[in-house]
Amino acid sequence: MDISSLMKENAAALMPALEENLKTPDESLETLYSAMRYSALSGGKRIRPYLVNRFCRLFGGDEKAAIPFECAIEYVHASSLIHDDMPCMDNDDLRRGKPTNHVVYGEDIALLAGDALITRGYEIAATNPFVSPEIALHATKLILGNAGGEGMMGGQQIDLLAEREKPSYELLLKMHEKKTGALIRTAALLGCAAAGIIDETDERYKAADEYARGIGLAFQIIDDILDVEGDAAILGKAVHADAKEGKTTFISFMTPAKAREYARQVTENAADAIRKYPASDELVEFAYFLLKRNK
Amino acid sequence: MDISSLMKENAAALMPALEENLKTPDESLETLYSAMRYSALSGGKRIRPYLVNRFCRLFGGDEKAAIPFECAIEYVHASSLIHDDMPCMDNDDLRRGKPTNHVVYGEDIALLAGDALITRGYEIAATNPFVSPEIALHATKLILGNAGGEGMMGGQQIDLLAEREKPSYELLLKMHEKKTGALIRTAALLGCAAAGIIDETDERYKAADEYARGIGLAFQIIDDILDVEGDAAILGKAVHADAKEGKTTFISFMTPAKAREYARQVTENAADAIRKYPASDELVEFAYFLLKRNK
Repeated sequence: MDISSLMKENAAALMPALEENLKTPDESLETLYSAMRYSALSGGKRIRPYLVNRFCRLFGGDEKAAIPFECAIEYVHASSLIHDDMPCMDNDDLRRGKPTNHVVYGEDIALLAGDALITRGYEIAATNPFVSPEIALHATKLILGNAGGEGMMGGQQIDLLAEREKPSYELLLKMHEKKTGALIRTAALLGCAAAGIIDETDERYKAADEYARGIGLAFQIIDDILDVEGDAAILGKAVHADAKEGKTTFISFMTPAKAREYARQVTENAADAIRKYPASDELVEFAYFLLKRNK
Repeated sequence: MDISSLMKENAAALMPALEENLKTPDESLETLYSAMRYSALSGGKRIRPYLVNRFCRLFGGDEKAAIPFECAIEYVHASSLIHDDMPCMDNDDLRRGKPTNHVVYGEDIALLAGDALITRGYEIAATNPFVSPEIALHATKLILGNAGGEGMMGGQQIDLLAEREKPSYELLLKMHEKKTGALIRTAALLGCAAAGIIDETDERYKAADEYARGIGLAFQIIDDILDVEGDAAILGKAVHADAKEGKTTFISFMTPAKAREYARQVTENAADAIRKYPASDELVEFAYFLLKRNK
């Protein structure tokens, strides 16, 4: 199974909707919307939309209902990258091989574009026309709770403070669970929602949750390994950045080989959580694809 | 009628809920939540929550249902102030007589606190336990649409570009309609929603909308006049800031006296839109209170 091609297909199929939702509504707003599009449409792996789509499909949902949720989660993710890259945060000039948003549009517009893009993401979920109001509300609450202070943004705060004072291993885990894990988990659960599953006690909901927690953690471990052992040309970003910044990562607590073994175990558990569902093959393979990625 | 005292009473009654929603959920997130509370609980006129409350009351709603919406709109507003004050935007050190968020917490935490506070605002609206899912979803969409790129944030973009190229009078109006007007209008409509009115064709909805558009515009005209004629000690911020920065305001297009007359007319129209409803006296007087304010 060629996961990479399947992901690209899903990303390509999503593109019209991603563009449509960010059309400039009024010429006086062209700068803002152009900045929003610059970051949201500039590629990337589109892992989160792919997960939304495949969990919707796994549980027999109509993929049309997944599309707005795919856009929503991607906008939220892209917004976080705009703000993360800003000089007062990570101060990155390059993202996906292109100048970062604030380099192109200036810090003021980049700040606003991040604000407007995340708000648009939430809005697209809330206004999904292919699901009931109950499901739209559930999905919106899911995204808000996992993007906000107790989720992704909370993880970013832990990350920021961790640069000043070395975090414990437990805090490192918590940071990743929030910073990256929360949105990956949300993606899988949005797929469930698109398929009509919004009951937290439903075993399909729990299986999706467990799978996503696993691949989210493995994803981050691999990220840390790639910063040490990866190829900058393939990654599209500098390597050894963590070490240079004195950042605490999984590699601060174990060798790359041990970290890889840990990621493998976590991936296996994730795969096991969904294996019993017919048609789970692709998602099982996707978990291993993430484990083996080199970018 | 002592509008100022009534507003203070409403603000005081809201305080426990404003605090409760921003309690630190986990000690590792204390910095982020402390920064969120710093800006959201630091006072201000609380005009938007007051409007939510009074429109809910005007149309016979249960005020309990208004509280989460009051918090939501105030958090969204406070978040916008955090980002507005940042060095890459207006670069203000002082807000409501206190150091601004980034001065106290640093730019990185302030950026995140703004993100997390607005997200929390949206979430509090979406999770309002005192209304039906349909009303919660309506209210959430209302806030998202009016805070985002087509609303407040769009207005901020117009404002930013207006500093580089002088805007026309039409563009100035559009900027204010979005930047300040959109949230004031949302506040009134959230009050309607708390009272169960979410049909845009309902004449009470339309009356609230018209009233709020009027007082929003008058509010901004008065703001521009106060920057010219106000007292810095009473305002709690520097005057003549607009002129110093070469900003285009209503005073760029008319004398302060003409501007005041315009604000008076707009206020009168706003008051007329709701006069026929019993118990509209306070909101009518509130419109004139805003017109006569000196801070």
